[in-house]
Amino acid sequence: MSDAKIRRPRAETPKGFRDYFGAEVAERKAMLDKITAVYHRYGFDPLETSAVETVESLGKFLPDVDRPNEGVFAWQEEEADWLALRYDLTAPLARVAAQYRNDLPSPYRRYAFGPVWRNEKPGPGRFRQFYQCDADTVGAPSVAADAEICAMLADALEAAGIERGDYVVKVNNRKVLNGVMEVAGLSGDDKEAERGIVLRAIDKIDRLGADGVRALLGEGRKDASGDFTKGAGLSDAQAEVVMGFTSAKRDTGQATVARLRELVGTSALGLEGVDELEQIAALLAAQGYGPDRIVIDPGVVRGLGYYTGPVYEAELTFEILDEKGRPRQFGSVAGGGRYDDLVKRFTGQSVPATGVSIGVDRLLAALRAKGRIGTDTTGPVIVTVMDRDRMADYMGMVGDLRAAGIRAEVYLGNPKNFGNQLKYADKRGSPVAIIQGGNEAAAGTVILKDLILGAQIAQNATLEEWKDRPAQVEVPRAELVAAVRRMLDAG
Amino acid sequence: MSDAKIRRPRAETPKGFRDYFGAEVAERKAMLDKITAVYHRYGFDPLETSAVETVESLGKFLPDVDRPNEGVFAWQEEEADWLALRYDLTAPLARVAAQYRNDLPSPYRRYAFGPVWRNEKPGPGRFRQFYQCDADTVGAPSVAADAEICAMLADALEAAGIERGDYVVKVNNRKVLNGVMEVAGLSGDDKEAERGIVLRAIDKIDRLGADGVRALLGEGRKDASGDFTKGAGLSDAQAEVVMGFTSAKRDTGQATVARLRELVGTSALGLEGVDELEQIAALLAAQGYGPDRIVIDPGVVRGLGYYTGPVYEAELTFEILDEKGRPRQFGSVAGGGRYDDLVKRFTGQSVPATGVSIGVDRLLAALRAKGRIGTDTTGPVIVTVMDRDRMADYMGMVGDLRAAGIRAEVYLGNPKNFGNQLKYADKRGSPVAIIQGGNEAAAGTVILKDLILGAQIAQNATLEEWKDRPAQVEVPRAELVAAVRRMLDAG
Repeated sequence: MSDAKIRRPRAETPKGFRDYFGAEVAERKAMLDKITAVYHRYGFDPLETSAVETVESLGKFLPDVDRPNEGVFAWQEEEADWLALRYDLTAPLARVAAQYRNDLPSPYRRYAFGPVWRNEKPGPGRFRQFYQCDADTVGAPSVAADAEICAMLADALEAAGIERGDYVVKVNNRKVLNGVMEVAGLSGDDKEAERGIVLRAIDKIDRLGADGVRALLGEGRKDASGDFTKGAGLSDAQAEVVMGFTSAKRDTGQATVARLRELVGTSALGLEGVDELEQIAALLAAQGYGPDRIVIDPGVVRGLGYYTGPVYEAELTFEILDEKGRPRQFGSVAGGGRYDDLVKRFTGQSVPATGVSIGVDRLLAALRAKGRIGTDTTGPVIVTVMDRDRMADYMGMVGDLRAAGIRAEVYLGNPKNFGNQLKYADKRGSPVAIIQGGNEAAAGTVILKDLILGAQIAQNATLEEWKDRPAQVEVPRAELVAAVRRMLDAG
Repeated sequence: MSDAKIRRPRAETPKGFRDYFGAEVAERKAMLDKITAVYHRYGFDPLETSAVETVESLGKFLPDVDRPNEGVFAWQEEEADWLALRYDLTAPLARVAAQYRNDLPSPYRRYAFGPVWRNEKPGPGRFRQFYQCDADTVGAPSVAADAEICAMLADALEAAGIERGDYVVKVNNRKVLNGVMEVAGLSGDDKEAERGIVLRAIDKIDRLGADGVRALLGEGRKDASGDFTKGAGLSDAQAEVVMGFTSAKRDTGQATVARLRELVGTSALGLEGVDELEQIAALLAAQGYGPDRIVIDPGVVRGLGYYTGPVYEAELTFEILDEKGRPRQFGSVAGGGRYDDLVKRFTGQSVPATGVSIGVDRLLAALRAKGRIGTDTTGPVIVTVMDRDRMADYMGMVGDLRAAGIRAEVYLGNPKNFGNQLKYADKRGSPVAIIQGGNEAAAGTVILKDLILGAQIAQNATLEEWKDRPAQVEVPRAELVAAVRRMLDAG
């Protein structure tokens, strides 16, 4: 700073990052408070790990080179570990479950929320820091834990403001899918590439439809732009088995399970998966979570490789308009599943775990789209400054208002231009402005301007409907708080 | 992971970082909720910037080299900017105030809380990630803004649970100090080193006492360990002027201000500072913030170089025991001041700003030391599993309890060993365990064990006082919720 020649720094949020202001912060907090209250009621405890992990613990070293995967923000400590920002909340949980395994209760139910970081190319609506809100149960082998997470997810969505009927939690099981792969002759180690293509194809069924998926199972698919995606090269018979799986959904969970049982044939893994789905369906039905909330749906795959059993996903079923004004389904806002091998990375011992992650920004966007945010974003009452020397009087007024629980502030900019004070009040969304000039001070009164009413009158030429509500009143100073409260209650 | 030879990663929090579990997270949240509610009532809006900033914007490039200061966690983007984790919440605010200067209301009042990161050597109780909670007003030149922050800080501390009398907010003004420097002949550009030593010496007066500070103003000081700290080399006359400043505090703000006015003599800057302190004292007195809450105290310096006017600090005045069991004052938990030049770095134009930062972890530690946390950390009611095949029944029970707002969960570990289930309930701090074996199921009943009462009875041999409260009851299944509630209310 002492060198005058140093050029001025740019005031810019780094590329791919963003700032959250006022209502955005308040709305997210209100939503997370509602969701975590549900998690708490289900017996889950909060956990907050540090934002920084060793790259080793994240498992994000590139194979064979001692350099972190490009997807994480990482740096090397002087002659020490590579450190990185967490890219999700699951990897830190696996580390915690291993590190504190002798101290934590088992099963360990925890929820966590906070930012995660991805070192990826930013795009429209794609940021390199975003919030997740997770709940996981570590150490519970029973699928009752998976069923519980699904029920809790449904409850959390409703608590956040998504009405019943506007969402559905879909449940599937990777073991069933792997059983189907066995039946289709795709289970060998040498078939890993094909299985990957099949998984990704099924994952896209909502977008591509059955024909698109079928093409990807075979030779491949040309999309609308002419780009060709190579397929898995399955034979017709193999593809039929897989397509049978994608269309196995029936009207009831029972019927879907029965159809899946046919499809997995004698595959032991597949049968185990079907049994698990049947148990989950029975547990949820017994608690009254019907298909209006949670359904068995073989279309759900979940991209991540680490899932080992049940997988689940919450979809919002209402339509919103996309950037081109076309209606489309809102889609997925949460997903998860069972990952029995993540803790094993550290300890060598398999530890059963299952959990869900809510995409906080997407769910917030959905609530905004449906007008269900419901956070009070009213600005403060503004006490204007007519006479700089009487600042103590003005601060006394806000003091009285705040003591009565009313959000209030004195205008602290340059008070010379009164118009600027009212513009400021407008920008803050203030409901009421207080004015006390010399005359009022001498008379022991204050003037209250109803800014909400004023704005309504300004928008609407006929004053008829407001004739009984004056937009401005003068009251004794002693009645300031009561008069402001009346004005706020009327607004 | 496909390579079996890869050694297992260590499950370790990175050095200098830590994890926060359960009650620690809940307690911090409860405290921040109370503090930010006060900020909100004062008209402050939340702001959440990204954790990542460009090093350029943070101003943390080392002079003359294109490499970030070692105090920040930084990394270079591929052929692009250096990025770094924020080290406080003030630098990002200055960036935001410059970047959005045409859109933000002016004055802009914002609060923010969240982790900040320091790339420093970790030590006992010294972490490289910790929370701050800040409130700042940008664009308000009047010291009314400083007075408001001091009043708000006092209110926030009381809201958090620090009782009146257990804290004091001390206010001073850098201009007064600089005026005193002028009088002492220490105002030239060539005297920067001396001024630095003087500032740091005054800052240590609580710890070193007047004699220690006096030594540091002169030749230097040898501490108890024998280490010598070089002094500012002031003449006796110069040192007397400075010492007069450190001992200028009088019983009332008015008297202190009068004494300071004598000390700054004809220094214009000093007189400006004294006038500002006088205004602040008058504004606070008019609102009833007496010396039991806020005092003018020339001993407050605040280390940071960027303060340009009023500075303030909140100290807790009660004693706690240090690590060696000796009583000592708890000390500072918050501090701040006016920094009119931080935004100027970006825009070239001076923007007045003032704000406070609360040391979240220190304040939490103080509340814990005083037993004023008051967060409910009761564990969930545990429904034990006596018969794995009746899991749906057990889940129905927790469903009923949760629907009634009672925190509850089914034991989801391996149910074979019933003792493990009770150990788990104990580890979770459960107040009540529910048991339904085959006999109870056949009879349509459940057994409730009062675990809190059980623990009390176990600690106390005489059962006399609990004779009317059975530690275990059997009730019809239909009365489960009511019976649990009775037990919780009695506990």
